[in-house]
Amino acid sequence: MKRNSFERIECPIARAIEQVGDAWTLVIVRNAFLGVRCFADFEERLDIPPSTLARRLARLCEMGILTRERYRSTPPRDEYLLTPKGLELLPLLIALATWGGKWLCPKGTPIQAVDSATGLAIEARMIDGKTGREIVAGKVALGPGPSASAALEKSLTPPRLLGARPGENLEIRK
Amino acid sequence: MKRNSFERIECPIARAIEQVGDAWTLVIVRNAFLGVRCFADFEERLDIPPSTLARRLARLCEMGILTRERYRSTPPRDEYLLTPKGLELLPLLIALATWGGKWLCPKGTPIQAVDSATGLAIEARMIDGKTGREIVAGKVALGPGPSASAALEKSLTPPRLLGARPGENLEIRK
Repeated sequence: MKRNSFERIECPIARAIEQVGDAWTLVIVRNAFLGVRCFADFEERLDIPPSTLARRLARLCEMGILTRERYRSTPPRDEYLLTPKGLELLPLLIALATWGGKWLCPKGTPIQAVDSATGLAIEARMIDGKTGREIVAGKVALGPGPSASAALEKSLTPPRLLGARPGENLEIRK
Repeated sequence: MKRNSFERIECPIARAIEQVGDAWTLVIVRNAFLGVRCFADFEERLDIPPSTLARRLARLCEMGILTRERYRSTPPRDEYLLTPKGLELLPLLIALATWGGKWLCPKGTPIQAVDSATGLAIEARMIDGKTGREIVAGKVALGPGPSASAALEKSLTPPRLLGARPGENLEIRK
């Protein structure tokens, strides 16, 4: 067992990457958020063979990110809906959109998220709900959580600063 | 040209997925955030052949997410540092950690992000900086941005609700 393999097993970032860290999963989820629900519509938008699409949709259902529901019985027609677990991927998509809009669209972003109540463009920011402070590199550290193994507890005590600058202390002591 | 292929080219979410939407990129970035900088340390943590790792690090440098800096000249030793573009991936990682901690760790999360000033666990939330409202499914829509093509402008006017429930109107009219 490699020194850090416990991290790969335990770490929720690693687990999340395993479930949604591939381009196809994210593209399907993005389309589901935009209201695509039936197989034929996914197929038209994604330009992949039906057997591949079917496999990917089945995998998303297995993971509990989508659920397959029959919406018509004759002829039988199913639709794929985001579950609560799937719907909570929205901050991830907004984080991708914000970063992509800033760093990958030199002429300005071609899409923007808007508040559904006002229609005004939103400025997505990730904050600590307790303090209201923005979560930015160098201000946040990673520490052990309630279910950390002894090895992980040891490796993250003291908590390790995320995105420290060179020369900056990687560990915080509080 | 397929009806929606303009979306795949223009959409910053699709572009971002192209750059960081694969497991290896995210795992390398996650380790870079935790302070891993030199080739040997990445190698030890990632358990991939050196030639594969070298290719992936080179690709991250090409994309401008990491930068390769010489920190010692004899013998020559380089380190890989997150650039500003790379450091702004933090909300994406925190979104992965939050979602993974909630949905993939039934016994509670083994890691948690803490405020580096206080050492207290943070509650990551994505909000609209203008209104302070949390960004959740059904409350946010996607509309055309300043650089939208005519086709995209048309497709996202009126803005389309993200994560609408079945039966809910997909479009907002403001």
